[in-house]
Amino acid sequence: MTDRIESEGQWISDVLQPLVRLPGAFDLKDDCATLAPLEGNAFVFKTDPVRAGVHFHADEDPAAIAWKALAVGVSDLAAKAARPVAYLMSVSFPEAPSRAWADAFGEGLAAAQAQFGLSLVGGDTDRASGPLSLSATVIGEIPTGRTVLRTGAKAGDRIFVSGTLGAGAIGLALREGAIAIDDAARSDDDRAILTAARDRYLRPEPRLALRAALRRSATAAMDISDGLVKDAGRLCAASQVGAEIAWPHLPVDAAVRLAHGDDDASRMQAAAGHGDDYEILATVPPDSAAEFARLATAAGIEVTDVGVCTASGGARLLDKDGREIAIPQAGYDHF
Amino acid sequence: MTDRIESEGQWISDVLQPLVRLPGAFDLKDDCATLAPLEGNAFVFKTDPVRAGVHFHADEDPAAIAWKALAVGVSDLAAKAARPVAYLMSVSFPEAPSRAWADAFGEGLAAAQAQFGLSLVGGDTDRASGPLSLSATVIGEIPTGRTVLRTGAKAGDRIFVSGTLGAGAIGLALREGAIAIDDAARSDDDRAILTAARDRYLRPEPRLALRAALRRSATAAMDISDGLVKDAGRLCAASQVGAEIAWPHLPVDAAVRLAHGDDDASRMQAAAGHGDDYEILATVPPDSAAEFARLATAAGIEVTDVGVCTASGGARLLDKDGREIAIPQAGYDHF
Repeated sequence: MTDRIESEGQWISDVLQPLVRLPGAFDLKDDCATLAPLEGNAFVFKTDPVRAGVHFHADEDPAAIAWKALAVGVSDLAAKAARPVAYLMSVSFPEAPSRAWADAFGEGLAAAQAQFGLSLVGGDTDRASGPLSLSATVIGEIPTGRTVLRTGAKAGDRIFVSGTLGAGAIGLALREGAIAIDDAARSDDDRAILTAARDRYLRPEPRLALRAALRRSATAAMDISDGLVKDAGRLCAASQVGAEIAWPHLPVDAAVRLAHGDDDASRMQAAAGHGDDYEILATVPPDSAAEFARLATAAGIEVTDVGVCTASGGARLLDKDGREIAIPQAGYDHF
Repeated sequence: MTDRIESEGQWISDVLQPLVRLPGAFDLKDDCATLAPLEGNAFVFKTDPVRAGVHFHADEDPAAIAWKALAVGVSDLAAKAARPVAYLMSVSFPEAPSRAWADAFGEGLAAAQAQFGLSLVGGDTDRASGPLSLSATVIGEIPTGRTVLRTGAKAGDRIFVSGTLGAGAIGLALREGAIAIDDAARSDDDRAILTAARDRYLRPEPRLALRAALRRSATAAMDISDGLVKDAGRLCAASQVGAEIAWPHLPVDAAVRLAHGDDDASRMQAAAGHGDDYEILATVPPDSAAEFARLATAAGIEVTDVGVCTASGGARLLDKDGREIAIPQAGYDHF
């Protein structure tokens, strides 16, 4: 007989209550949480569901599932330059989880919230047919009026991305067995690069350290969760600008070349057409670009100037000769 | 060919954007919302999912589905004496909705948010196998430190419920065809009572008008969403008290007698063992009881003194001779 979590009450007391770090959660003994921002600050809200079969594999390590469920929302807060404060976690189980699954899930959530600096304050648990589904509503804090939006980009602004692109795509391919480390790696260094890509897919690291640089210099920002070209298109639409992004300048993750060699189409697809990287896309006025890069580097995050905002034309990825590159499946549409 | 909503973008622009009433939602052009409570106030948060096959019928009028998805969370805010401000709405579709369904859903949400006084500020939409699923995270506002919790009840406090109990159970039975209005009604008055019960099941009315009375007098409160006995048990556990609730004093909805006649077991089950009423359960010190009832009546809501908090013993429903009544299925366990 498998040891299972038998009731909603047991799930709350054994898994969720130990995650409470704020008095306004009332130890989850109430059905609501109460929070106020510090004086002069406002809250920033985001709801982000993740689902087995779409955002993670149903048989994934529950600690990694928990991490990702929280990280995807915190990544949005990072892009808005907001400090994470609290979250509500809703979980819908297809069947009662085992004790071992629940324990690992709780540990993953504890690790993630400690890393990102926020506390569980509420949520909901139920059972339903269909895939395991989690939805975190994350709450961040920011000085009033200082949220970095998608809407502020201007023609002429430089376009930056943080970190490297494409690791998420390779991590997914590794996780699914479409690529094997033993086939793609020729050295221990290669092996480390590919392992890091897989880990990034499983446990994305929201770029919280970039907040000060964003708040200081960015006219617009968002996280890249559905692929650079698609997400840049959204930022352009919200800001009513276009974007020219230079493929030769993209900070393509080393794992992409290991996996795809010189196959340009596959490399472009992984780096510019796939989600799961959770890097930050930001626009910065040209005369602030150097300062933005310096602040980012000082915070431990490399940023790369990949292009420029134009007056119109949507988001376009251009090759070294300035010709537009079509990305076959430009990111994931959840609908 | 059915006219369908083709993309997440279309759903947002056609259905959701018209529901935005607050500038902090940035017309949903961003992926986050920004809000601050008024000075001296705090926010109260609650997430409440509703799911086809559990909380509503998959073929229900989409306007009623939308109403209920919002009302269940707002009912929690009402019990906490919080003023509704905003909500994030997540929707998971098993298939792309038709244009007609989306329009009706949007109208239902518009009607509910206007009635309850809050604005859409964000959310998420995706598709997944499994039943249609909605989750509203509602945000209310309350003077700092004045949230009415579950934890404050003391032995000796009187126990009040608002309105009438059991209409939700009869409404569900009518909706499912287990009871027919033509069989249960003997007059136009009967017919009106049963129709009202069905409407209450479909479109519960959160008891927002009770907030002033709760804030003034209640030591603890919660909404009754899983059945009086079960929910009273939760309040007792949170407050570390017991409760003696007098069956003869319960404000049983007139629809219950029409549906069940003198069948005590069925009447008790409907009034004390079933959710869907969304009335308020509150505890009030004995010397504030008269004032609480007067404030409630002045706000247009009848409240009934149904029992007393005891030092221990859990929540017990007692018959006229003081013997405990066992409620066969004491409310719904979501796990």
